[in-house]
Parts: sequence; C-alpha cells; structure tokens
Amino acid sequence: MTKRIVVIGGGAAGASAASRARRLDPSAEVILVEASNMITHGPCAIPYYVEGIVKDKKMLVTYTAEEFERERGIKVFINTVAKSIDVDKKVVVLERNGKEFSIEWSKLVIATGAIPAKPKVDGVDAKNVHVIRHPAQVDELYEAVRSAKTVAIVGGSYLGLEMAEAVVALGKKVILIEKEAQLLPKTLDSDMADIVAKEVESKGVELHLSESLKEIIGNHSVKAVATNKNVYDADLVILATGVKPNVELAVKSGIKLGITSAIDVNEFLETNIEDVYAAGDVAEKKHIVTGKRVWIPLAPAANKEGQVAGANSVLGRFLRFPGVVGTAITKFFDMFIARTGLGEEEARMHGFNVESKLVKVRTKAHYYPKGSYALIKMIVESGSGRILGVQIIGWEEAVAEYINVAALAVEKGMTIDDLFFADIGYHPAVAPVWHPLIVAARVLSHGRF
Amino acid sequence: MTKRIVVIGGGAAGASAASRARRLDPSAEVILVEASNMITHGPCAIPYYVEGIVKDKKMLVTYTAEEFERERGIKVFINTVAKSIDVDKKVVVLERNGKEFSIEWSKLVIATGAIPAKPKVDGVDAKNVHVIRHPAQVDELYEAVRSAKTVAIVGGSYLGLEMAEAVVALGKKVILIEKEAQLLPKTLDSDMADIVAKEVESKGVELHLSESLKEIIGNHSVKAVATNKNVYDADLVILATGVKPNVELAVKSGIKLGITSAIDVNEFLETNIEDVYAAGDVAEKKHIVTGKRVWIPLAPAANKEGQVAGANSVLGRFLRFPGVVGTAITKFFDMFIARTGLGEEEARMHGFNVESKLVKVRTKAHYYPKGSYALIKMIVESGSGRILGVQIIGWEEAVAEYINVAALAVEKGMTIDDLFFADIGYHPAVAPVWHPLIVAARVLSHGRF
Repeated sequence: MTKRIVVIGGGAAGASAASRARRLDPSAEVILVEASNMITHGPCAIPYYVEGIVKDKKMLVTYTAEEFERERGIKVFINTVAKSIDVDKKVVVLERNGKEFSIEWSKLVIATGAIPAKPKVDGVDAKNVHVIRHPAQVDELYEAVRSAKTVAIVGGSYLGLEMAEAVVALGKKVILIEKEAQLLPKTLDSDMADIVAKEVESKGVELHLSESLKEIIGNHSVKAVATNKNVYDADLVILATGVKPNVELAVKSGIKLGITSAIDVNEFLETNIEDVYAAGDVAEKKHIVTGKRVWIPLAPAANKEGQVAGANSVLGRFLRFPGVVGTAITKFFDMFIARTGLGEEEARMHGFNVESKLVKVRTKAHYYPKGSYALIKMIVESGSGRILGVQIIGWEEAVAEYINVAALAVEKGMTIDDLFFADIGYHPAVAPVWHPLIVAARVLSHGRF
Repeated sequence: MTKRIVVIGGGAAGASAASRARRLDPSAEVILVEASNMITHGPCAIPYYVEGIVKDKKMLVTYTAEEFERERGIKVFINTVAKSIDVDKKVVVLERNGKEFSIEWSKLVIATGAIPAKPKVDGVDAKNVHVIRHPAQVDELYEAVRSAKTVAIVGGSYLGLEMAEAVVALGKKVILIEKEAQLLPKTLDSDMADIVAKEVESKGVELHLSESLKEIIGNHSVKAVATNKNVYDADLVILATGVKPNVELAVKSGIKLGITSAIDVNEFLETNIEDVYAAGDVAEKKHIVTGKRVWIPLAPAANKEGQVAGANSVLGRFLRFPGVVGTAITKFFDMFIARTGLGEEEARMHGFNVESKLVKVRTKAHYYPKGSYALIKMIVESGSGRILGVQIIGWEEAVAEYINVAALAVEKGMTIDDLFFADIGYHPAVAPVWHPLIVAARVLSHGRF
C-alpha cells in the first residue's frame, strides 16, 4: 500500500492536517473522514448567521468537500462516522449510509473536535432546546429563534454572549442564565466581567447570575426553564453550557487521555500510540506560562495543530506545537472583550505572587475626535514584574487587536519594564502617545516610570 | 544650593524629564526652560488642527505652563532661550525679554528637540512659505491654507502626507514634490510606497516624485515653485523637508555628538559631560536590530527618554533606555501606514541576507461583513527566518495596531516560526482565523507551514 494518511474529523484541525499532509507529501494518499455533510465548518460563525449578519449559509464553510477533492487531491468521506480504530492492525472502521467498511492507514490523525456538554436535567431533549456546535444543525436554530418570543440562553460564556447579541438584535427577549457569579467565568476576572454584565443588561438582556439550570419545563415544546432559584417563561432554550473533548473513539481505541480528559499529546502531537496523532479541540495543549497541561478549545490553535499533525504524519518530527497562552477574543454588539495569559485568581492558584491593576485609558490622542476608552486589567508577578495575563474591554475593533501585543508579551515572558520600553507605534488617530498597554504597565511600576 | 535639575526644552522629552525628576525626588528643585510660549506641545497634532479635525488650539498642548507649575511643582520659564552652558561651573545662561541671566544646575537635561531642515534655495524666506514644527507658529499656517488656492508641499514624508490630507480636505489643490523616487522614502520600501502613491493621487494630489526644489518664485509672496524638472504655480508653500537635531547649544557647550549628528548618549542617557543628560529628538538612539546608532525623532521614544533622563538625573543609574526598532504609524485619510524594524534595502545595507514577501490579506473572517484587506510586507533574514521588519498598509485603524505586534516580534528577535505559532487571538469580527501577520509569516516559510 502507498502511504495513506487518514484524518478523522473535517473541522479546522482535520482539514488543516489533511491539507498539510497532502502538500508536503504529494505521493501520500490522504483521506479526510467527516461525520456531518460539510467540512471546514466554523462554529464561530453560527451566532452571526443566526443574527443575519452572515447572509449566506454557504459562508459557514471555507471549502466544500468537492473543492477539497478537486483542488487539493484529498479524498473526502462526508456523512461518514468513524466507529472504531484497531491500532495494531492500523485499520479504522467507518460507517456510511448504515454500511460499515474498513480502511487501512499508515498514519492516523484524530481531529474529532469538541461536543456540547449538555446539562443532565429533565426536558433537555424537548423540542425547542438547541445546542450550538455544528453548522450542519444551524437551519433549525435559525428558524426557531425567528419564531420565538422569549429565549432562555443557558451559559454566559463566549457562545452564550454571542447568541445573546444575535437574539437581542432580532428583537427577542433574552433571559441569560449563568451558574457562576459572573459572566465569562473562564475568560475574565470578576471585576472585568462586571463591566460586561452592565453592558449586557443595558441592551435589555435579563441576566441571572449564580443560577443553575434545574429543569426545562414543557410537554414536547418548551414553556419555561427552572433554575435553583426561579422559574422563567421561555419558548426557546439555547444551551451554551460548554463543550468537552470528543474522545469516545480515542478512548475505546486505547489512546491515552491527559489530565484534562482531552487526548494526551507531545509537542509533535503524537499520542501514546505510534503513528497516531491528535490535533485541535480533541487534544490537550501546554500552557506556556505555567508549563501545565490545559484544554482550551479554540480555532487558531486547532488550525495550527492541524498543520503540525499533518506535517509530522508525512515527514516525522518536522514541526512542534509550542502551546498556548489562552488568548481569546469575543464581542457583544460593539463591545470587544479579549484576554490572554492567566487571570488573577488562576495565577494565584498556580502559585504566583500576583499584583494587578485595572485601568481606564483613552484610545486616541486627547485632541483627536472619535476616541473612546479601553479598560485594561494587567496581572503581573510581584517582584519580577513579569506579565502573566491581560484582559481588555473596549468599544473599537482596534482595542481587540491590543490583545495580540499582550499575547506576545506574555508568551515571551516580558516584564512591565520590557513592555513600557517596547517600541510601540503612535499616531494621534490610532492611539495616545502613551499606548493603553503602556499605561497599564506603567501603573504597575509603583512610580518607577 | 538644594539639588536643582534644569531641563532645557519643554516638548515631550523635556516635560517628561521634569515631571519624573520632580516625582522621584520631591526635595529637588526642577526648572523647565522653554523658548516658545507653550510646553508639552505636540507637532503631531498640527496637520489635524490645520485640517479642522482638532477644533481647539488649546488641545495642541497637554498642559499649560501654569498647570505644570501648580500641579507638579515645577518652575517653568517660557519664552526663555538657553544661550550657553558652562559645564565646568554648572551654569546655564538664559535670555528672556532681551535680558540675560544665569542659573546654576546640579543636573542638566538637554531636550531641545529637532528643528526643520529648511532647503537652501532662493525664495525660501518669502511670505507664504511655511515650515511645520511648533504649535506656537500654527495660526499663521491655519489662515494661510484657508486663503490659498494651490498649495505646494515639498517633502513626501509623514508630515508632508499628513499636510496633504489636511489641504485636500479643505478643498485646495495640492502639488506634492518629493526628491526621492518614492513617497515616505525613510519609512517604506518602494513597492509599499507605490501603493500609497496611488491612493494619494486618487484623492486629487498632483504628485511629483524624483523632483527636488530649486527655487521658490515670487516677490514677497509666492507665485510658483521650480524643481529640477518643472515650474508649478502655487500661492502657498509648505516645507516638510525633514528635521534635524537641535544641537547648536550642545555643540558650543562641548557636548559630544554621535555619528548621526545628534547628541551621543549611553543607555542611561548620559552625555560625555558628567551630570548632563540628553533626551528626545536631540539625542541619538540605539537600533535594537542592528545594534547601531540611529536618529529617529518620534514622540513615543522622546517621552520615554524623558522618563529615563529625568529619573536618572535624581536617582543615578535608575532606568535604561533600551533603544528603538523604528516603529512608526501615519495615515492619509482612511489609509493607515505603519512600519517597524528594517526596510528591505536597509537590512541589506546592514549586511543581512534578506527575503521578503508582500501579501494582501483579508482583515476579517471571509464571511464577516465590512472587512477590508491589509497589505503586509515582511522582511526576514534568510535561513534563520528572523523577522527584521514589517510594513503595513490598511484601511482600518485596527490594521495600524498590527504594527505593535510586529514591533514586539522584531524587538524580541522572533522568527517566522515563532510568530506563526504565537497565540494570536481570533474572532470573526476582528480578524480571520489566520491573522494577517500569521499569513505573512506563513508565505515566507517556503511551504513548511
């Protein structure tokens, strides 16, 4: 048999892995297996499709299976479920249209992504209860939101907030329920999250923090949702209660999970089984600040891990994936929210002595019109001044871009002195002469600069 | 005598130095000497005041002399010219209202900035020939532009372009003359500058490259400008022909200049004379990429150098100024232009083996509306892939912010691999999943990723 690379999962990581393998070894046969009817699908677009900002459903995918086959020479099996892997015989059993068949592989890349973590409460399978994960299921949601009057969104993470924007924009009442005492609990410290909460409420969202879903009430169709504190009328429920690594196939095939319950991989994205790689949301990553294993399922890392696994599947130890620092961006209407590195409590949990400041800074020179302000929280290690994390809220897109400057600073172990003296650019229409990030570094210097 | 810090020059560096000295040593007497009638004046604002975007002339200064005296406890001598320095007796001779007087200093900070480099041609002192450097002279220019019909701007650098925007916005005809074969010759490589030139011409500017000013024609009042190639009718001339370090006072006081003809300083901003510091546009800087001395007069460095010189003047070797990588941002209407590090030719001149690519990249996810594109030129060292410089043109403010990410990458010696795998954030409304800078790094990888 010629070298055959089989990639399971056609999302960001899988499509990226298949493309790289094909590109770097044109002699290899590359097969991409996808359970749904589309590949290169991005869940990030779903809220904006539902909102009506993204007009064409075709835009939710980057390439069709046909394009992938024709332009890249990759065999794509859509509507095909991987049932089991025999890692000794190097065979994967697939099922399509109810029929099972096996294919052999020389190298296997598991990129089965993440799946919604549905809460285990009564009524969760009722009609008009939706989870968001895959564009293949988006049409139903699109219609359901339009026919609804009151939508209960369960979960105040990225997706919950982004869906809240979509539903509010469509003129519907939103009840947003979050079990933690703050929005975006994995993303922001509570002082920053409080600012987001105010904005969310100012757009008419009825926000209920510290309430957990207990039951979805209604026969067949939703009538209300019950939390540990109250009952709220609603005729549609959107569950944005998080995701978990889709490891079922891996587990039953003897592929080892890490401490986060995602697949354990080394920097080459090799699993414990020879010739089997894992990439994307199904795989664990290293956190560059702590050196510890984390599971942060986000598209940029998934795309890059796909590159690494795909390249290494044909060339051996060709690329390394260095890890992540937890950079993420979201928005709610015109409020942009971004973070990188460790949060304040998170940093303490990892044993750092921490100092932080939350500053409010103008985004343009004081004399230049149309400036707004940004809120920046910077978290540093006491003494060394090493920047451990940054969180940003602002009302201009450019503010979200600050987070990439901060991400490099965190990744490179820069201190507040390093950032203060970094040669950050200035133009009055773009930033004040003291860039907002420099101001944040400065207030942490205890008057040294 | 109590410790007395005298700072000569009330611009960015001087005001910053005086403030730091005062803050870090409340027992010291701090005197700020300024030749004009205002301090903390920013020349960066002048084009936008002339254009009418900045409405209030008061906005051109950050603090008045009164505020500085009252709020910061700094003695401010405005309208006071420093005539000479006796470095042995530690005395500076000042002149105010035609009267000379001397003051002693314990430490001296020279922050005399830069002055326009006026071309030596006939007619350069005619009425209606303006240079741009100091807000104190802006009223005349403001009126002159409004009464003009055709304005010849000499010099296609930042200031020339920014003034061209202002004058076009006021509905006047602009003839822009640049002696080099491209716009922004110290800022952009010619391939990038060509893109700027197209945009400049599309706004109606009559652009004449590779032409140098030979004469300004007219008795008292300007009638035309002559270049080495042509004569152009014009009733107002704006000279944006660059600046030079304002070192006259330093030179006659025995303070040593560096190879760039700006004041030679070490990383503590000490000059060759004990107890004399120099900061801002009057001082040379180290280029972090080449390790060589450069003169790049820009406000962010000036402000930070002021901090360093001010702090060190009272605390000794307390802060270091690490140098610059030449980050700069300008704009022409809604086109933002930014650069950092070395240009392609510049890198070659410094002995680097260089590769570069110019890429055109979408600024948002393909499905997200209102995205535009950015042009990014990345210059790397062949072999190592170390990023030496980045140049960016785009039509969104957020694109200008990319340059700060690039600046950190250049400053930290990051390679294209480092940048590609950096944990840059993603949200469809903010950037594509492959951030434009990552795309630029990627195309330079020769298919490795």
